[in-house]
Amino acid sequence: MKGNAGHKFLFEPVAVVRSPFEEKFGIPRQAGLAPDAVGEVRLLAPYDDPAMLDDLAGFSHLWLTFVFDRCVGQGWHPRVRPPRLGGNREVGVWASRAPFRPNNLGLSAVRLLEVIQRPSPYLRVAGIDLLDGTPVLDIKPYLPYSDAVADAVGGFADSPPRPVLDVVFNTDAERDLAALDDADTLCALIIQVLGLDPRPAYRQGAEPDRMYGMRLAGRDLRWRVTESGIEVLGFALYAE
Amino acid sequence: MKGNAGHKFLFEPVAVVRSPFEEKFGIPRQAGLAPDAVGEVRLLAPYDDPAMLDDLAGFSHLWLTFVFDRCVGQGWHPRVRPPRLGGNREVGVWASRAPFRPNNLGLSAVRLLEVIQRPSPYLRVAGIDLLDGTPVLDIKPYLPYSDAVADAVGGFADSPPRPVLDVVFNTDAERDLAALDDADTLCALIIQVLGLDPRPAYRQGAEPDRMYGMRLAGRDLRWRVTESGIEVLGFALYAE
Repeated sequence: MKGNAGHKFLFEPVAVVRSPFEEKFGIPRQAGLAPDAVGEVRLLAPYDDPAMLDDLAGFSHLWLTFVFDRCVGQGWHPRVRPPRLGGNREVGVWASRAPFRPNNLGLSAVRLLEVIQRPSPYLRVAGIDLLDGTPVLDIKPYLPYSDAVADAVGGFADSPPRPVLDVVFNTDAERDLAALDDADTLCALIIQVLGLDPRPAYRQGAEPDRMYGMRLAGRDLRWRVTESGIEVLGFALYAE
Repeated sequence: MKGNAGHKFLFEPVAVVRSPFEEKFGIPRQAGLAPDAVGEVRLLAPYDDPAMLDDLAGFSHLWLTFVFDRCVGQGWHPRVRPPRLGGNREVGVWASRAPFRPNNLGLSAVRLLEVIQRPSPYLRVAGIDLLDGTPVLDIKPYLPYSDAVADAVGGFADSPPRPVLDVVFNTDAERDLAALDDADTLCALIIQVLGLDPRPAYRQGAEPDRMYGMRLAGRDLRWRVTESGIEVLGFALYAE
């Protein structure tokens, strides 16, 4: 057989992601689930020639091929337990988008908000599901006629994760939020991210009064799960 | 910044493609354009544990992340001339799906026809735009809710390539075809592939009587362009 199937290939990041998601916990499990999750794709030399971005602004969406770099070297198993199935049923790793997979490659369709070519090229993108610092190996335009498969059937993950929980802010959290310049943006992001219920599947339905926390956009977000949904308890600046 | 943006990553093919496309010339320029282009994705050890393919059959489509391996080491330019624009206008390489790009990564959404788990795991897939022998780095299920972006706008490539040419078979070609076991399948494939007009853009509209040839599915396909479309002249077994 012709080709290079026996070879290994060395890849260099062409860009790095700046994201409000600064830890794995709480990251939406696919692109597009949190439309207000806005980040940047910062091109790295020698892949940062502004001419490389010419004509990109005509596309509404992009593919980012990236490395789940915080999972590299941690191994993989032939079968995984997707959160979608409550974490108690296994599927083959090739039937999943799990980060613990051979080659640790990820793929996200993100909305392109803005192309900044000069002085230092970067892209503003929305709907990201990427950890801050994620290395990007490729950027491609989303081609509707080829990529948007209208009749596709998605197996055990055919529809978006449901239900989406109601999110309310308590008095402390409202006060924290009101003091911020970007209150509206962050409020929308918090509602989208927590509404997806970031708890591990085995905790869902249990310990309703347990407090949770995650770092989001440089702040320390705390919440608890109530009978009716999620109550945000605070949103203080993160203390290193 | 946290992360591994400065690192390089070494990847190993997890599978290899068997395809009717045995040379670059004539390959459809995106997945899905030739629905009858059927191939196989053959898993390679140690990524060929049948359990890795469990539950995949529930998905209608897959993403293949692959290497344009016949382009590796041949360099790239900040701007490219996509065939879509007649080969005479340049766009930024990040706005294109050109194989000559940093890291030479490709991405195709293919239809999953069949999952064969034993004894040697492979996938039968359709609508491929891949050269025989192409190394595959990742296989992911296509998730309609996240991947099929209904409102996406595709810049200079918003709609499928047009026009599609009419393809007729002359007497010799009809005779060649009739002698084949897989005549119907190959006939459909030829019509789809030649209908997309594989000529280089600079030749289109010129030299209408020039004869063209390509190797397809182990045969030597010859055709010419007429006033009304494409005339297939022969389809003999390929002589090594």
